[in-house]
Amino acid sequence: MRLPTAQSSSAGDTASYPFDGPTERLAEKYRRVREQTVALCAGLSAEDAVVQSMPSASPAKWHLAHTTWFFDEFVLHPARGQHIASDSWRYLFNSYYQSIGPMQARPQRGLLSRPPLGQVLEYRRRVDEEVGKAISTMAGDKALADAVTLGLNHEQQHQELILTDIKHLFWRNPLQPAYRDRAPAAGGRNSMPLRFLRGEEGMGRIGHAGSGFAFDNELPQHAVVLHPHALANRLVTNAEFREFIEAGGYRTPTLWLAEGWDTVQREAWDRPLYWSTDMHSAFTLDGVQELDAHAPVCHVSFFEADAFARWAQARLPTEAEWERRAMTSRSDGNFLESDVLQPRAAEADTGANPLQMFGDAWEWTSSPYTGYPGYKALPGALGEYNGKFMNGQWVLRGGSCVTPRDHIRATYRNFFAPAERWQFAGVRLARDA
Amino acid sequence: MRLPTAQSSSAGDTASYPFDGPTERLAEKYRRVREQTVALCAGLSAEDAVVQSMPSASPAKWHLAHTTWFFDEFVLHPARGQHIASDSWRYLFNSYYQSIGPMQARPQRGLLSRPPLGQVLEYRRRVDEEVGKAISTMAGDKALADAVTLGLNHEQQHQELILTDIKHLFWRNPLQPAYRDRAPAAGGRNSMPLRFLRGEEGMGRIGHAGSGFAFDNELPQHAVVLHPHALANRLVTNAEFREFIEAGGYRTPTLWLAEGWDTVQREAWDRPLYWSTDMHSAFTLDGVQELDAHAPVCHVSFFEADAFARWAQARLPTEAEWERRAMTSRSDGNFLESDVLQPRAAEADTGANPLQMFGDAWEWTSSPYTGYPGYKALPGALGEYNGKFMNGQWVLRGGSCVTPRDHIRATYRNFFAPAERWQFAGVRLARDA
Amino acid sequence: MRLPTAQSSSAGDTASYPFDGPTERLAEKYRRVREQTVALCAGLSAEDAVVQSMPSASPAKWHLAHTTWFFDEFVLHPARGQHIASDSWRYLFNSYYQSIGPMQARPQRGLLSRPPLGQVLEYRRRVDEEVGKAISTMAGDKALADAVTLGLNHEQQHQELILTDIKHLFWRNPLQPAYRDRAPAAGGRNSMPLRFLRGEEGMGRIGHAGSGFAFDNELPQHAVVLHPHALANRLVTNAEFREFIEAGGYRTPTLWLAEGWDTVQREAWDRPLYWSTDMHSAFTLDGVQELDAHAPVCHVSFFEADAFARWAQARLPTEAEWERRAMTSRSDGNFLESDVLQPRAAEADTGANPLQMFGDAWEWTSSPYTGYPGYKALPGALGEYNGKFMNGQWVLRGGSCVTPRDHIRATYRNFFAPAERWQFAGVRLARDA
Amino acid sequence: MRLPTAQSSSAGDTASYPFDGPTERLAEKYRRVREQTVALCAGLSAEDAVVQSMPSASPAKWHLAHTTWFFDEFVLHPARGQHIASDSWRYLFNSYYQSIGPMQARPQRGLLSRPPLGQVLEYRRRVDEEVGKAISTMAGDKALADAVTLGLNHEQQHQELILTDIKHLFWRNPLQPAYRDRAPAAGGRNSMPLRFLRGEEGMGRIGHAGSGFAFDNELPQHAVVLHPHALANRLVTNAEFREFIEAGGYRTPTLWLAEGWDTVQREAWDRPLYWSTDMHSAFTLDGVQELDAHAPVCHVSFFEADAFARWAQARLPTEAEWERRAMTSRSDGNFLESDVLQPRAAEADTGANPLQMFGDAWEWTSSPYTGYPGYKALPGALGEYNGKFMNGQWVLRGGSCVTPRDHIRATYRNFFAPAERWQFAGVRLARDA
Repeated sequence: MRLPTAQSSSAGDTASYPFDGPTERLAEKYRRVREQTVALCAGLSAEDAVVQSMPSASPAKWHLAHTTWFFDEFVLHPARGQHIASDSWRYLFNSYYQSIGPMQARPQRGLLSRPPLGQVLEYRRRVDEEVGKAISTMAGDKALADAVTLGLNHEQQHQELILTDIKHLFWRNPLQPAYRDRAPAAGGRNSMPLRFLRGEEGMGRIGHAGSGFAFDNELPQHAVVLHPHALANRLVTNAEFREFIEAGGYRTPTLWLAEGWDTVQREAWDRPLYWSTDMHSAFTLDGVQELDAHAPVCHVSFFEADAFARWAQARLPTEAEWERRAMTSRSDGNFLESDVLQPRAAEADTGANPLQMFGDAWEWTSSPYTGYPGYKALPGALGEYNGKFMNGQWVLRGGSCVTPRDHIRATYRNFFAPAERWQFAGVRLARDA
Repeated sequence: MRLPTAQSSSAGDTASYPFDGPTERLAEKYRRVREQTVALCAGLSAEDAVVQSMPSASPAKWHLAHTTWFFDEFVLHPARGQHIASDSWRYLFNSYYQSIGPMQARPQRGLLSRPPLGQVLEYRRRVDEEVGKAISTMAGDKALADAVTLGLNHEQQHQELILTDIKHLFWRNPLQPAYRDRAPAAGGRNSMPLRFLRGEEGMGRIGHAGSGFAFDNELPQHAVVLHPHALANRLVTNAEFREFIEAGGYRTPTLWLAEGWDTVQREAWDRPLYWSTDMHSAFTLDGVQELDAHAPVCHVSFFEADAFARWAQARLPTEAEWERRAMTSRSDGNFLESDVLQPRAAEADTGANPLQMFGDAWEWTSSPYTGYPGYKALPGALGEYNGKFMNGQWVLRGGSCVTPRDHIRATYRNFFAPAERWQFAGVRLARDA
Repeated sequence: MRLPTAQSSSAGDTASYPFDGPTERLAEKYRRVREQTVALCAGLSAEDAVVQSMPSASPAKWHLAHTTWFFDEFVLHPARGQHIASDSWRYLFNSYYQSIGPMQARPQRGLLSRPPLGQVLEYRRRVDEEVGKAISTMAGDKALADAVTLGLNHEQQHQELILTDIKHLFWRNPLQPAYRDRAPAAGGRNSMPLRFLRGEEGMGRIGHAGSGFAFDNELPQHAVVLHPHALANRLVTNAEFREFIEAGGYRTPTLWLAEGWDTVQREAWDRPLYWSTDMHSAFTLDGVQELDAHAPVCHVSFFEADAFARWAQARLPTEAEWERRAMTSRSDGNFLESDVLQPRAAEADTGANPLQMFGDAWEWTSSPYTGYPGYKALPGALGEYNGKFMNGQWVLRGGSCVTPRDHIRATYRNFFAPAERWQFAGVRLARDA
Repeated sequence: MRLPTAQSSSAGDTASYPFDGPTERLAEKYRRVREQTVALCAGLSAEDAVVQSMPSASPAKWHLAHTTWFFDEFVLHPARGQHIASDSWRYLFNSYYQSIGPMQARPQRGLLSRPPLGQVLEYRRRVDEEVGKAISTMAGDKALADAVTLGLNHEQQHQELILTDIKHLFWRNPLQPAYRDRAPAAGGRNSMPLRFLRGEEGMGRIGHAGSGFAFDNELPQHAVVLHPHALANRLVTNAEFREFIEAGGYRTPTLWLAEGWDTVQREAWDRPLYWSTDMHSAFTLDGVQELDAHAPVCHVSFFEADAFARWAQARLPTEAEWERRAMTSRSDGNFLESDVLQPRAAEADTGANPLQMFGDAWEWTSSPYTGYPGYKALPGALGEYNGKFMNGQWVLRGGSCVTPRDHIRATYRNFFAPAERWQFAGVRLARDA
């Protein structure tokens, strides 16, 4: 069974963050985002959609069902007093909400050959129909609008995961199938010199404020102290990361955090995930392609980002340094919509403005993921969305080439464990000034 | 994608073991066995066919491809000097033949969303066409006939595994889907009293002799000494096993082998695999059904069979005791062809003849799996078929309700590790006399 | 072989932190600290001193040797150009300094029945003699004085570890031997009401400044923003923690960080480490004793501290909140020198001053352990002392009942992984104000 | 604390297997065997005696206590109605007798710094005194004599284990201390050609019969069929095993059982345990010594023995083949009493008689360890001695250089798991004839 291609899902939709328009806009955005998820799976067979490549990744079918369950649980159930999903489906597609009830263990999401993909798509249709009705009949209901908006932002997070997870699955298959068959980009832009741009100093404010949507972990806006520093004008490139490798970076323990070094040894890491052993090509969503020397390095763990920075006599930015700079940076970039699906070399230098702050690759920061001062988790089950993961992870900023453009903003905080590499994560250097 | 139903695959075919007829018979048998494999998968979707439920089990698609690879490698390559499969497919579908080359690691067979099921079925068709040609053009070539015959016996082993593996997969799915939807059998035969039948004593011969097919592990026929003993007239029933449970069998360490007791503790075993917690129903290929008290207990490990026997003040038979008795026993029984797909209560008593020697459930013996005196593995890669597993496993005899009838014989030796439970394995008691 | 009792090692020694006196004072302090380490082992047999109870803990003999190696490596080798230890001893007693060379793997420190304890003590004597000479002949050599001072602070950290590690070892022994035989303290102080004391707000500075010793992770002093908050006037008591347990704290997933909840499940935690199942007694260095309801709860992980705080509708303090308050708090307390070796109930209320800021139990903070802005690791191998552990750990403050008093200060940062429980770690609550 | 040297423990004692003399002889043997155990520990410090080097090995102190517990439990308790050991000691030093009660888990025997070695030795003295009294006052009590005799045989098994376990511990210590300091043997005997000696054919009997002591697993004597075969005249030498290595034996998967090959890969085996990387020296109880090319290879697993035999176009003997030949072979050899503590090159050829059947190195057989036909475990707790291990292990025969001479006999069956290498186990080849 093949998934249908989305019908011109983005045509004419101009909704931009922050969402604050009238009810019609929400209905439109709902349709657009939901269709986009299905469209991303259009090239996948039912077989591709059921397999789980590792405990951290999920099958595409599960993503399709779980994002729908989210609306069923947090929009339809409050609005209608009942779920569309049966109890067993609610068990299967609850991700980690203990308040709601028990759930299929994450490492066992790949066992679910049933329900079949067709039934999951039918579930999507029924939920979409009901949510559509709810939006139109309950216009002005703020709780509903908030829940739908949260659901759409949640869905966009899973859109990115669908791509990261399918990339990992195809890479683990010895046949190394491509997600799509597209000729490699022209590439070959020139190298842009790395420069450090002096950052703002003193007291400043970070975190979300205003009426637009934000996750609870972006709140509240609060004061921080910025110490003298500079940020690199662009992301670290494949060529630069290759220099680190050639200089023995993966064999020099003093460059690494202790747990990072243990990981390097245990996992026998000697290059970024997806790089070929020849160090000049890599597996991409378009199959194995030559590495563009000037494109940002990607699929490195926090440990590798941190070790690279130490080798380069620099460090990673703090999230405050990053966010203050991002507020005044261009927010366009190489996102999902550019349809490149891999990081791209930076354009010609723009002087004092850093490039690639948004899109291309998530940027590891030197900030552990914790709650901001005064952080309050959402009430009820949604309080489990973010807060309970504030341990053992590091913040990433800026979105990537597989992030929907209108999903991201300067205050957005992503987070992953320091040894994870299957996300599109790269490196921006910083320095004390 | 659904697999086609086999067209009247068994109609009119009377081939029976041992196979020793002319060339046409081989061609017919080839077609019949190969079609049977596909027919067993007819109710499975492509999604069902790709998932691996545990490292010991394989996806149905992999079984379909691997059995075909076997003919490609051991029949077509010798006959034609080339393979139909590409090198990468040969890597994927080689099971464990180190002589042939590296292979997809067993626990990772479930990653293979590609090649798609359709291509695997096409591979089957191409190989079938070529094997058909080879059989007809090389009539009289003994090496070819031997290789085809081995391949068919190999295929029948995988037919059984397709059913055991899909049963396990569906059981691990919280939806507990059925392989097929059939009303439970009438059941309710009466209980047949357990009696011990005195066995043969003194010198005897076991192992295969004659012109028919046998695996290398059944050879050579050789003398053994039979000590005074008796075998039970039927298999141990669900009701009897329930008595063992109620008597605290799973909580009494002195009934168990040391490693068995460790397993009971670690895995928290308290009943056979697939039994419900109510102890009166079980998961079957037809979904959860009431347990027939008089049907043979099934899906028990060697450890459980051995502990049960000790509790019953008996022991398991040796394979020599079993085989000598089986030679003169009725060889019909509840096999795959009876289409019950679960063990069935024994029929009315037949006096001195033991029942259920063949079919229903594999019978754990007290014989570790080793080579017979003078055992020689087949030459070349096929030498890896059996010999290298002669360590840490126990012999089972007699076939089960999911074994093809013409696959089994009195000398047939199956073997599994002592903690495995997903096979249709049960218990026949024996005693020193 | 019994270790000698230290001869009145602390008599008449008035050295107090910060150390900044003349050469004689350093020599004195060296002797005092070094003797104290041996004295702590006086009640241990050679057998007690060789066993390792878990990978995170080390044998007492290893601590005795490693602290000595530290002076050999970082004081004597630079000063004399050679080590006293042979290469094989340097391998054995290097802890984690990759710059220096390979080392005995941490989980295998318990294999070292050789060298015998006597030789390790002899090694201590030789090193002490040489360090003593170096101090007296190189008076005024700042590098030497700094290295000795670092070594003494390092040694004091291991004094605490000797006690935490031997407590764990004796607890794992079914005989539950006591480290010493002392009657339980009178206990029975009254309960002091829990109050929250409003903290300082706005910009402030934390981190070490001035001439006294500090570890590199306390540097540099830097500005922070303090948000409105209040700190509890004392530590959480055993009675309060028992309420949490009785209220189902260990069975309520929504109170826990996700990884904390996983740990609770996997490890079957239902009470603090060392508590008896009766919830009213606990294993101590004096053997099993009744729990003092009003004494601080101890041996809880970060996960438990965090879950308790959430249950109490509070949170843990940040390290900045803690440090700013500690600067103006009484720095005396229940330290190693009080010889109680377990936390003690707080004294009568002192109004606006929080109690138990120092000593009794390390206080888990809500601050992940990272480098301060502008943090620079020490040059050379000593750069591995702290910096490489800045990942996946949380900061603890204030010292404990087994910390030497002159080892601690307001800027002192300890750190442990969030699931560790064998340290003397407790809980102070904080709240947003 | 040092253990006392045994006082001329073997002087004048002529007791030889089978034991069937009057009461005085039992008392004498008791004293001799018990003293021998302590004498073997004479060179060990209390530190050496407490450490456990791996889960399969036990500390010497534990061996000293457990063997004593055995008499306490199976001799004194039945005779006197009470134990000398407290309940907690009975917990600590019960090995695996579930019938008696719970026990210290095997992998945690190394945690027991308490009770101290001195108390264990005192326990030995008290038990010895009481057993001595019982023997003298209950002369003629067969149950007592049987229990004492079993206890002595049990003790001798642990004597061997004390040496194998301490060898492993010292080898894991980077200092590689020697158990004793003895100059290497002269070595240099000439190479004796390998010849195969035709064995007995047809029906024969194996297993113990007669009045002497035997373990239950040697019973009952029973008929077996011997197929045409030949046994090598001596054990495989270090030089021969080196040829196997040089021929790529450890890199050729087809030589290995499947689980053996997995083990080779996982453990990176490329030579016998204790061999140095230079392949010409090895760690021994006398420290690292040059390998004697003509001495038997030792410390190989069943997997290695089996792979070597396959490479040599031979196989391992069955236990029946071995035992029938051993009945008529010289029973002297290189045992513990020869005090060499390592295998020794075979003496000059003796024609039709195989050499080294007893002593030097345990000989792996091709026989899985199971009960003989009609096997009955001893009644009561002693039934756990042997029977529950009849799974997953292989039989070894003949004793080794660290086996007490009067412990061994032609019917003696030792058994170990196929990947274990720390026992003194070697290889004798056999062939079908």
